[in-house]
Amino acid sequence: MNCLEERILRDGVVKEGNVLKVDSFLNHQMDVELFNEMGKEFKRRFEGKDINKILTIEASGIGIACIVAQHFGVPVVFAKKTQSINLDGEMLVAEVESFTHKNKNNVIVAKKFLSEDDHVLLIDDFLANGCALQGLIQIVQSAGATVEGIGIAIEKGFQSGGRMIRNLGFQLESLAIVEDMNWETGEIKFREQD
Amino acid sequence: MNCLEERILRDGVVKEGNVLKVDSFLNHQMDVELFNEMGKEFKRRFEGKDINKILTIEASGIGIACIVAQHFGVPVVFAKKTQSINLDGEMLVAEVESFTHKNKNNVIVAKKFLSEDDHVLLIDDFLANGCALQGLIQIVQSAGATVEGIGIAIEKGFQSGGRMIRNLGFQLESLAIVEDMNWETGEIKFREQD
Repeated sequence: MNCLEERILRDGVVKEGNVLKVDSFLNHQMDVELFNEMGKEFKRRFEGKDINKILTIEASGIGIACIVAQHFGVPVVFAKKTQSINLDGEMLVAEVESFTHKNKNNVIVAKKFLSEDDHVLLIDDFLANGCALQGLIQIVQSAGATVEGIGIAIEKGFQSGGRMIRNLGFQLESLAIVEDMNWETGEIKFREQD
Repeated sequence: MNCLEERILRDGVVKEGNVLKVDSFLNHQMDVELFNEMGKEFKRRFEGKDINKILTIEASGIGIACIVAQHFGVPVVFAKKTQSINLDGEMLVAEVESFTHKNKNNVIVAKKFLSEDDHVLLIDDFLANGCALQGLIQIVQSAGATVEGIGIAIEKGFQSGGRMIRNLGFQLESLAIVEDMNWETGEIKFREQD
């Protein structure tokens, strides 16, 4: 059991409707020391990969991505969810649907920050149905860049996103894969990983 | 001249309407090494302050806040701009108006993450009219917590936010204070600091 799985068991809260609340350490209050441990583990799992950029999506992916980036020595780009008046120039745009918020967003990255020379590690906090991730993959590929790998903090293994992404041939590494959780007992069961 | 001022002169772009674009290193693509230098400088400027938490606001404050937090050994909380269905329990809410986006947002922090025991450093990427910052100060004070200081990457010194915050007695440290900028010549003039 790794440090993130231990922390989920200690401080995560299971809510009705397959909601796992980890807001005390992952996506509202953020434990930067934990993020550093996660960064070390991602570095180990993507050893040998030629990665020169990390791409994430606002907002809760940004903190993890920045700390993880220190372990790879690369810059971070975060995709924006709405068109901002401060964005100008050519944009890469993908439409994604959020499982949590039940709405559609345009995921946007300025074209100048992704090119065919880029070898990208995608980082995000959660993977459930994988819609946000599909948007990020679409954006990287539309720039002619390469997805070298995908690092997720928590994957909901009982939803389809992870299987679909792995079936497409991507190296997807989720530090904690929740196989099952029960809001009445609070029990959380993780998939065993090497 | 510090590392952020040097970087602004090198890679910042002045646009019509007093817009300073720093999206290649600060708030779209993020240079994590630069953020580490900024973290060292904030640590120096807030030496002796008893800080146990950093508070920022989504989205572009999060990356800076997480890297800076490593230099203080404290967790980060980021305020959210919209009510999310994943937020539950009691909330601290302040209404703020964005100068950039010309709209109003509710700034929201779960009450459980701020208490009267907290000594908070506020971190954000930009300070212009200071509306977002006023919302964060309001939230900290409504929790009975203490604002120990405010660390900003870039302050627009020709707008009123910084003066107002300093007049209220807060220790506001901006790593780069732009006194004047000219979109026709591209010239940027910084306020001299010790």
